[in-house]
Amino acid sequence: MHELFAENQAFRANGRLWIEGPADRFLGIGRLELLEHIQATGSISKAAKTMGMSYKKAWDLVSSMNTQARQPLVGAQAGGAHGGGAALTPAGAQAVAEFRAMQERFEAFLAAETARLYQ
Amino acid sequence: MHELFAENQAFRANGRLWIEGPADRFLGIGRLELLEHIQATGSISKAAKTMGMSYKKAWDLVSSMNTQARQPLVGAQAGGAHGGGAALTPAGAQAVAEFRAMQERFEAFLAAETARLYQ
Repeated sequence: MHELFAENQAFRANGRLWIEGPADRFLGIGRLELLEHIQATGSISKAAKTMGMSYKKAWDLVSSMNTQARQPLVGAQAGGAHGGGAALTPAGAQAVAEFRAMQERFEAFLAAETARLYQ
Repeated sequence: MHELFAENQAFRANGRLWIEGPADRFLGIGRLELLEHIQATGSISKAAKTMGMSYKKAWDLVSSMNTQARQPLVGAQAGGAHGGGAALTPAGAQAVAEFRAMQERFEAFLAAETARLYQ
């Protein structure tokens, strides 16, 4: 397709991937990164801050994921409210690993499509 | 991954795919559908109406594509301003065919990922 592009300009395939249930998005790249930051920081509020996201937004995303999952993906730890810690449950760790792998397959798809643009 | 999902709920992989240049999106599903409607109706304003899109929005999208392409994807036909016809150029027809094929490969990717969720 490269013969269609203005000369001396780099084009690429890009996109977004997510898993959705009947009512809402379940996992996407933003939710994945939030889970990974919760895993790294042990805290929803620290994870939100790292991402430049409000605590309410982060909490709503966690609530959406926990509601749609058979077992919660994020569990509270002792300490209460904003101060308390949070951690990924085994289900949460599995969701991170599996969606990260899906995202990597998507990135491979995009790289192949970008290469194909220039064939 | 299905063991993570709330029971009796159907989940699926979904997403969006586009081609982007250095400055802007070049082609995506909305732009593809706009080009296909221009091809079918011979008119930017009719295509916009079919899509529930303002004429200005449609014109801006066509302008963005034409600016980024080596040869315009959409050409004006006699008749002037809103009343005049529009048609895909050969480059436009090629862009439609190639991006439609890319979109179909993406849909196959999504179907495979949805199947994989339930393996």
